[in-house]
Amino acid sequence: MVLQAVLPDGDVVKTGSRARKSAAGYDLTRLIIGSEGTLGVITEVTLRLQKLPSHSVVAMCNFQTVKDAADVAIATMHSGIQVSRVELLDEVQIRAINMANGKSLPEVPTLMFEFIGTEAYALEQTLLVQKIAAEHHGSDFVFVEESNAKEELWKIRKEALWAGFAMEPDRQAMITDVCVPLSGLAECISVSKQLLDASPLTCLVIAHAGDGNFHTFILFDPSQEEERREAERLNHLMVHTALSMEGTCTGEHGVGTGKMKYLEKELGMESLRTMKRIKAALDPNNIMNPGKLIPSHVCI
Amino acid sequence: MVLQAVLPDGDVVKTGSRARKSAAGYDLTRLIIGSEGTLGVITEVTLRLQKLPSHSVVAMCNFQTVKDAADVAIATMHSGIQVSRVELLDEVQIRAINMANGKSLPEVPTLMFEFIGTEAYALEQTLLVQKIAAEHHGSDFVFVEESNAKEELWKIRKEALWAGFAMEPDRQAMITDVCVPLSGLAECISVSKQLLDASPLTCLVIAHAGDGNFHTFILFDPSQEEERREAERLNHLMVHTALSMEGTCTGEHGVGTGKMKYLEKELGMESLRTMKRIKAALDPNNIMNPGKLIPSHVCI
Repeated sequence: MVLQAVLPDGDVVKTGSRARKSAAGYDLTRLIIGSEGTLGVITEVTLRLQKLPSHSVVAMCNFQTVKDAADVAIATMHSGIQVSRVELLDEVQIRAINMANGKSLPEVPTLMFEFIGTEAYALEQTLLVQKIAAEHHGSDFVFVEESNAKEELWKIRKEALWAGFAMEPDRQAMITDVCVPLSGLAECISVSKQLLDASPLTCLVIAHAGDGNFHTFILFDPSQEEERREAERLNHLMVHTALSMEGTCTGEHGVGTGKMKYLEKELGMESLRTMKRIKAALDPNNIMNPGKLIPSHVCI
Repeated sequence: MVLQAVLPDGDVVKTGSRARKSAAGYDLTRLIIGSEGTLGVITEVTLRLQKLPSHSVVAMCNFQTVKDAADVAIATMHSGIQVSRVELLDEVQIRAINMANGKSLPEVPTLMFEFIGTEAYALEQTLLVQKIAAEHHGSDFVFVEESNAKEELWKIRKEALWAGFAMEPDRQAMITDVCVPLSGLAECISVSKQLLDASPLTCLVIAHAGDGNFHTFILFDPSQEEERREAERLNHLMVHTALSMEGTCTGEHGVGTGKMKYLEKELGMESLRTMKRIKAALDPNNIMNPGKLIPSHVCI
């Protein structure tokens, strides 16, 4: 990937060549990606295209507990199977999908998979994972290979966010985004689930389980200060659980202003100081998305 | 991957968490990797381990021209086949291997592959590539699956560097390292090969063809100024060929002092100025590997 970006002083930088790999200088591409607009404005992105796989399989499996489901995701990834997607939905998320779409899926923790490759390989991987699931009390393992059937099955996952919002349409969703080392996912998600189940708020869990990354949608009424505080308390506890397991406060959504307070615990003051020095060197007048990402109390 | 690094002011930074992905702040990991010691000293590296594949196949195939061999590497990568290694050796490199190891391999451009996965998948990929090779005048396609046979066959590639050095033991090797977008590899390698074949110096080509990255070993007598100049001329022309194809002057060996002069053409003065600003912000006294990577004439 290569970027063209306009820096605060008006310099237009190209961050690399079109070669697949390069050792030519500092990696400005990665520095600017994830800087959330604080170092410059990205004006062009060159991506490497991937060939569509010749075949894919979509599979789904039910579990008694989120821990079992997470254990299967972990075992699948650790077995070296090249699963292209593995998503975990808890029973509340499945209930939301049933309500939104008039479905009658079993309201239990569920894993969804996509396997890609040649026809034979995708099927071989599917059957290997079916076996792993059976070893962890998985039930109702189904898989489909036909194009329309795959689209129909994956729709369950694709529409999960909207089904979650629709569950209590008068409420807002606070969306959390912790990510932990894969080996810790089952523990982190189990601890979080106990917390969420004990809350008076409706909470849905959806995880990119293959990455150790999971989101919860905490539905709250923004006009009720008590509900907002409860949502924040849950988010806060989950972040601290993740950080205590050497995870991150944000797997993919970014820092913005909401996660700034966790960065010192996650990365240490020295890292934040280094980030602030880079920010000050490239944007001395602090004109690019000021007040974001780096806490204001960090001194350079 | 996470680093611990000591910065010029003595700050010890941790560049990330142990989560597989994170959006928590600037990517200091990637910034420090490839900075060639100019921003700090890496004192700890945490890597994610990969599971060894359950099966692998090693294959080899001969070609009339380096262009045909490169075309097969390109077609293989573009076909979506998940080849784990694809290496191209030209006829001079094969001659060096024959001389060093008493082998009698056909002295023609040669591709070597490694395929990984389940047993069925690795074999399936192998046969797909055999078909691609046949479409590009490939001959003598062989593959092995047994552990000792794989080791024996891959040894040819593994010992290529030493065989190259041994070819003319009184000479030194200047090793080049350009990398181009994969679609341009066949052209770049063909143009380079004409240049190398026309030189009085012995030149060997070895390519990480799947990445579009190739090395030449140019053997020269360092006591002969004329030979050194000829080696530099060849290197220079290959770098300019690669840059004219939106490639890089260094795919993996780094900049050091030797490649500094190409960075402006590859990345533009604005990118170099940005790098120098980062260097000056983190190392204001220029105590970390001074004089490397960023050309001295770059002004901040």
